[in-house]
Amino acid sequence: MDIDELSQKILNRDRRALARAITLVESQRSDHRAQATELLGTLAKHRRQALRIGLSGTPGVGKSTFIESFGLMLTAQGLRVAVLAVDPSSARSGGSILGDKTRMERLSRDPNAYIRPSPSQTHLGGVARRTREAVALCEAADFDVVLIETVGVGQSETVVAELSDLFLLLLAPAGGDELQGVKRGIMEIADVILVNKADGDLKSAATRTCADYSGALRLLRKREQDPPGYPKAMMVSALEDQGLEHAWDSLQQLNNWRREQGHWDQRRADQARYWFVQEVRQALLAQLDSPQARAHMTQLGDSVAMGDQGITHAAQLMLANLTQT
Amino acid sequence: MDIDELSQKILNRDRRALARAITLVESQRSDHRAQATELLGTLAKHRRQALRIGLSGTPGVGKSTFIESFGLMLTAQGLRVAVLAVDPSSARSGGSILGDKTRMERLSRDPNAYIRPSPSQTHLGGVARRTREAVALCEAADFDVVLIETVGVGQSETVVAELSDLFLLLLAPAGGDELQGVKRGIMEIADVILVNKADGDLKSAATRTCADYSGALRLLRKREQDPPGYPKAMMVSALEDQGLEHAWDSLQQLNNWRREQGHWDQRRADQARYWFVQEVRQALLAQLDSPQARAHMTQLGDSVAMGDQGITHAAQLMLANLTQT
Repeated sequence: MDIDELSQKILNRDRRALARAITLVESQRSDHRAQATELLGTLAKHRRQALRIGLSGTPGVGKSTFIESFGLMLTAQGLRVAVLAVDPSSARSGGSILGDKTRMERLSRDPNAYIRPSPSQTHLGGVARRTREAVALCEAADFDVVLIETVGVGQSETVVAELSDLFLLLLAPAGGDELQGVKRGIMEIADVILVNKADGDLKSAATRTCADYSGALRLLRKREQDPPGYPKAMMVSALEDQGLEHAWDSLQQLNNWRREQGHWDQRRADQARYWFVQEVRQALLAQLDSPQARAHMTQLGDSVAMGDQGITHAAQLMLANLTQT
Repeated sequence: MDIDELSQKILNRDRRALARAITLVESQRSDHRAQATELLGTLAKHRRQALRIGLSGTPGVGKSTFIESFGLMLTAQGLRVAVLAVDPSSARSGGSILGDKTRMERLSRDPNAYIRPSPSQTHLGGVARRTREAVALCEAADFDVVLIETVGVGQSETVVAELSDLFLLLLAPAGGDELQGVKRGIMEIADVILVNKADGDLKSAATRTCADYSGALRLLRKREQDPPGYPKAMMVSALEDQGLEHAWDSLQQLNNWRREQGHWDQRRADQARYWFVQEVRQALLAQLDSPQARAHMTQLGDSVAMGDQGITHAAQLMLANLTQT
């Protein structure tokens, strides 16, 4: 693969080149990893940046409908939108959070939108790196907005929050004890909560839910990266295209404020440091993945299980072996 | 420190030697680590084994009272009992789950009992290794039963379960929605659930709670390491010394069955393999803790944050640096 050519095509907004590049960064093969690193290094020099919006919401809140409506609104304004998914659960099911794109048929046919379903992955670490690199590729391909969505299984919200400039939590209208259903940690990373399905029979329930969350957000500790009035809860109806522009205005307002105040730069810098540390840790642990290391681990593990060797001593032998090779 | 002498004293049930040895395995100093490894290796040859009982329960269920009553019952039968704590939360508070032993005053004065409070630790990994090695030292010091208790913060139950032959969950009587308060994962590792405080005004509530949990346990997937009737829920009153012998009979019955069926050996072997893998992973990551490594991480992290270097590339530089030294 000619990395310079691929790089140039991505910079020229070539969608097939982008798709090929994402497939490249998803690969576990070591020659592919080397090419991916070279490609990302080349593209990084252009320092293109998109607005990265993290989006979390459990199944049933209308996430696909929201992404489609919200995405089409953005492209109608002349913006280019990429949608990526972080889905650690697909490692088990082999499926994909975004399905076969048929759930967002109109957006997927929009020339200014690019939707990339989540691949099957074996662990969250791999999902995180793949998504981080796919975001960088989308930025290089000159997208204005990158939506990173997750169903919020396990640690995936943390991954998405550490990749995003803004974090959106999408909820459905619900009864009075709805608040208990949202983990406190998620509330604390949300910049804007959108109560979807504020239409038809659910409109009054949505109003109540939105008020409940507005109240709950006011009780959270004030974060220095928030201007007055944020984080906030708002109502939308993705189905009826209601409130989406208002939500987008709020997101832009928040983002502009953070850029002016220096929070945006600070957050990107912190995120880069965070991912660097994660990458180093993962690379260290990846030394255990080679066939030789696995064989040695099994052999030492057996001797430990038989009681022939102490755990600490066996671990020292393993480490000595790893650093020699 | 003369490791042979220390080892001999521990084998001769010398409590002060045991206390010194546990302090040694708790130390982070590299010369202490080397001595601890040598000591554990020497003691391991004697292959002494105790019955390891993990015990979890949130604050307020009467854990200290239970351990005191249960421990005194065991020592009255001529058994020697050691009590250890896994308390990752003490890393923050600097305190100890077992306090200053005053909460178990009678047991702590019993010559056949040994109580070791949890030390302050910086991370769960450290807590886990320290506890695993302290268990081994107690076994070498010829204790018959080692109780390993935790308040169940975060991952600590997993640590305790991976160190135990049997896992006890202690609960207090409660209202009808009590079941929701216990994480499913804890239910799944419990061998026996004890509903404590089955005395006075709480007796009828305890009966209901016990029945609720009996029902819940029957709904769990059958585990091959359980004879008919297990896992089970039982009532005890630690305050009034009620039901403790019955609980002990049930634990012994379960343990004997597992020994006869080979599950006991299998579990110990699996646990040894598990801890070996954990130890190797931790040792790999510990390479990042040296002053040089930290300085290098900071420097590369800064250049990544400035955008001067890609994350993957910087991680490769860091790894190359680590493997050279």
